[in-house]
Amino acid sequence: MENKKVTLVGAGLVGSLLSIYLAKRGYKIDLFERRPDMRKANISAGRSINLALSDRGWKGLEGVGIADEIKKIAIPMYARAIHHKDGTTVHQPYGKDNQAIYSVSRAEINMRLMDLAEQQKNVKIHFNERCTSINRKNMEAEFENTETNSTTKIKSDLLFGSDGAFASSRLNMQLSNDRFEYNQHYISAGYKELIIPPGPNGEFLLEKNALHIWPRGSFMMIALPNMDGNFTCTLFFPFEGEKSFASLQTREQVQKFFEEEFPDAVPLMPTLLDDYMNNPVASLVTVKCFPWTFDNKIGLIGDAAHAIVPFFGQGMNCGFEDCVVLNDLIEKHKEDWSEIFPEYESLRKPDGDAIADLAIANFVEMRDKTADPKFILQKKIEARFNSKYPDKWIPLYSMVTYSPQIRYSTALKEGQKQEAIMQKIMAITDIENKWDSEEVEKAMLNSIK
Amino acid sequence: MENKKVTLVGAGLVGSLLSIYLAKRGYKIDLFERRPDMRKANISAGRSINLALSDRGWKGLEGVGIADEIKKIAIPMYARAIHHKDGTTVHQPYGKDNQAIYSVSRAEINMRLMDLAEQQKNVKIHFNERCTSINRKNMEAEFENTETNSTTKIKSDLLFGSDGAFASSRLNMQLSNDRFEYNQHYISAGYKELIIPPGPNGEFLLEKNALHIWPRGSFMMIALPNMDGNFTCTLFFPFEGEKSFASLQTREQVQKFFEEEFPDAVPLMPTLLDDYMNNPVASLVTVKCFPWTFDNKIGLIGDAAHAIVPFFGQGMNCGFEDCVVLNDLIEKHKEDWSEIFPEYESLRKPDGDAIADLAIANFVEMRDKTADPKFILQKKIEARFNSKYPDKWIPLYSMVTYSPQIRYSTALKEGQKQEAIMQKIMAITDIENKWDSEEVEKAMLNSIK
Repeated sequence: MENKKVTLVGAGLVGSLLSIYLAKRGYKIDLFERRPDMRKANISAGRSINLALSDRGWKGLEGVGIADEIKKIAIPMYARAIHHKDGTTVHQPYGKDNQAIYSVSRAEINMRLMDLAEQQKNVKIHFNERCTSINRKNMEAEFENTETNSTTKIKSDLLFGSDGAFASSRLNMQLSNDRFEYNQHYISAGYKELIIPPGPNGEFLLEKNALHIWPRGSFMMIALPNMDGNFTCTLFFPFEGEKSFASLQTREQVQKFFEEEFPDAVPLMPTLLDDYMNNPVASLVTVKCFPWTFDNKIGLIGDAAHAIVPFFGQGMNCGFEDCVVLNDLIEKHKEDWSEIFPEYESLRKPDGDAIADLAIANFVEMRDKTADPKFILQKKIEARFNSKYPDKWIPLYSMVTYSPQIRYSTALKEGQKQEAIMQKIMAITDIENKWDSEEVEKAMLNSIK
Repeated sequence: MENKKVTLVGAGLVGSLLSIYLAKRGYKIDLFERRPDMRKANISAGRSINLALSDRGWKGLEGVGIADEIKKIAIPMYARAIHHKDGTTVHQPYGKDNQAIYSVSRAEINMRLMDLAEQQKNVKIHFNERCTSINRKNMEAEFENTETNSTTKIKSDLLFGSDGAFASSRLNMQLSNDRFEYNQHYISAGYKELIIPPGPNGEFLLEKNALHIWPRGSFMMIALPNMDGNFTCTLFFPFEGEKSFASLQTREQVQKFFEEEFPDAVPLMPTLLDDYMNNPVASLVTVKCFPWTFDNKIGLIGDAAHAIVPFFGQGMNCGFEDCVVLNDLIEKHKEDWSEIFPEYESLRKPDGDAIADLAIANFVEMRDKTADPKFILQKKIEARFNSKYPDKWIPLYSMVTYSPQIRYSTALKEGQKQEAIMQKIMAITDIENKWDSEEVEKAMLNSIK
C-alpha cells in the first residue's frame, strides 16, 4: 500500500487538501494543475470571491493538522452587517456567542495549501498541465503542457478529479460512461467583483469582523474583509432586465445606479467606475452528476462532483468535508477501494444535492429576506427558542455552518420542517408584539412534538 | 439567398428531411454523416427499435411532398394488442375509425430519406465524416474521415446539428457557450432487441396491423411489424433488481424467464436464446438543453436538441415537426435568421420539454397500466365521451398522436387536467357498472366547465 500511486487532476483547494490526506496515508501523489504556479506567477486562482470558512472546512483542515496555519490568514465575521438603502446599517449575528465564519482569500488559502502539500515528501505538484484524456482501461491520464505543448502520460492505481465546476475529468466520464447522470444549471444572475480599499493608514473602512450585505430584492452587493484592509465587493446582479448587467452600460448609468442603491458604499469605492467597466461578469453554475466513482479506481471530489452557487458559503467547506468523509472510509475499509468508492458516492451524493439546493435558496434569503422585518423577527424567534431549547431546535443556518456532525441532507429536511412550523408561528395574530411570549413558546413546543 | 451555404451535421432522419426542406428553398447543403452509407454497407442505423410514424411525422413528410413515397414502407397499426401472462390477447384501439400509427424500420426510412435528399441537386451527403469541432467565430466546422483520417474544414453561412442524442455539435456548444443549460437523464431500464421471424410462407405470425405489448408491471416486451414478415421485438427491462438484465445471465435463466412471462411468444422466437445472449443492452436517455441556437447562425434540431425515450413513439415525429416549425418560420421571417432562430427556440423548447416528460410517463402506462382493468375502463369512458363530445374532450394519446395542430405543451397541460377529472370519475361508486350512464356523462360535463 505504501507505494500506491495516485494521480490528482486539479491543485485547487480540494485537490491540494486531498493530496495531504492521501500523502499522510503513504500514497504517492502526482498532482497536476492546469494553471501556472500562482505562488510565482502572481496570477489569481481564476475566481476571487472571498470564501467563508466555517466548521466543516475547519474540520477538514484539522484532520491533517493544518487548521492553525490557515487561521493566520482568516478573519472572523460574527455577523451580517445589513446596509439599507437609507444608509443605515443593522447587525444580524451569525450564531451564538463567538460563533463566526472566517473570510479567507481564495488565492491565499490555495497557496498555503500548496505549500503544505509540498511539505509532504510524497506529493509532487506539476503546473501548466492540462488534462486532455483519461484512459480508463489502463488507468493512463494524458496531460498537455500549456507552455511547451509537450504531452505527458502517467499511469496510476487511483485517480481523482478535483478540477472544479468545469472539470475535464468529469467531462471525460460524461463521454465514456454509459448512463452518466448529468445536469448543469445556471441561475439568471451573474457577478462582478469590485473593491473597497483600505483607508489612508491601512485601516478597514467598514467594520472588519462582519460580512456586509446590501440586499436589494432582485440583486445585492456583498463585501468581505481581506487581511490587508481591503474589502472584496461582489455585485450579484441579473444578466437581463430593468436593473441588470445588460441595462448598465455607460459610466454615467453605473454612477447613478450605485449612488441610488448603495449610497453609503460609493464614497468608499474610488475606483468603482473603472472596476465596473473593466472587470468581467462571471456566471454561476450548479452541477449535479452521478456516479462520482468509476471502476473503483477513479473518483470525483469537490466542485468536480457537485458545483454549487456561493450563497451559503459552503463550496469549499463541502469539498473539504468530502476529504474527511473519504478519509474516514479509507480507515473504515482498510484501503479497500472496492468498498470505499461505492460507499463514498452513495453516502455523499445526497449531501451534495442538498447543499446545492440550500445554496440556491440562500440567494433569495440574502438578497431579499435579510432586509425584511418579518424575516428578521422569525430569525429572532428561532434564536430565542434555540437558546432556551438547544437540543430541540438548531436554526438551519447553524446546522449547515456550525454543525459538521449534522449531514447537509439532514439539515435540508430539518430546515423544511422548521420552515413549515415557522410559517404557522409567524401567522399568529400580533406576533410582532408577543414573539417572546409564553404563548408563542408553547406553540413552538407543540409543533415540534 | 439562392446560394446561401448550409452545413448539416448528421444525416439521420431529421438531418435528411431538413436538407430537403432547405434545398427546396434554394440553400446549398453539405450534409456530413459519421457512419458509412448504410445503403451500400448494409449497416444498421445504430439503433433499430422500429419507429411509429404518426400525424406529426406525416405532416413533416407531406411538407416536401414525400409522404406517399414513405407510405410504401409503412405498416398501419390500428390497435395495441395486449398479451397477458395467461396467453390471452386483448385489443385496445389507438383511436377512432381508421386512425393508426405506422410501423417503419428506422434503417429503411433513413435510406429512403437519403435517396430523396440526393434527388435535390443542391444536397450533397458526405459519409464517414465525424464532426470534431465547430469554430463559431468563423463558422468553420471540422470533420475527420473515419476511414482515411483526413480532415476537412468547411465554412458555411448556417450550420445545423442534427446528430442525435449524443450530438457532437451540442457538446461543442456545451463547452463553448456560457450559461448553457444541459441535462441528461437515464431511466433505470434498458432495452434489448429480439425477433419473431415470419412463418414458413413468409406470413406474419402475430396480427400484422397492431403494436404488440406484453405488459408486466416493471418491464415489458413489445413487437412491431416489418415489411418482410418479421416482428422486431424489444424487451424493456430494468438494469438491476430481481427481474432485470443483471439477474438473467445464463441461457437456462433466460429460457425459464421468457416461458414464465411471455408464454405465447416463446414458440415464435426460435433464435431467442442466441439473440438474448448476443445482442447488446442499450440505455435510454432524455436530454434537455438550452439554448438551441447560437449567434443566429447555428441551430440544434431533433434529438440533438431534445432526445427523448421512445415510449410515446414521438422521437422521429417530434424531429420532423421541428422541420415544419422551422420551415414556417423561414417563410414568416423571409429568410431573416436573426428573427427565425430566436422564435424557433423559444416557440419549440416548451414542446420539446413536454414530449420528453410525456414519453417518460408513457413508459409506466405501457408496461403497467395497459394490463390494468381500471385503466382500460378509464380509457373506454374517455373514448365514449370523446365520440359524443369531440370538441370537448380529445384523449391525451390522440392529442399527441393524431392532432398536429395541438402543441405538445398544450397536450401535456390538457392531459393533466383530464387526468385530474378522470380520477374523480373513476372514484364514483360502482363505476364499473355505470361507466356509460347518464350520471357519469353529466359528471364529466360538469367537471370540464
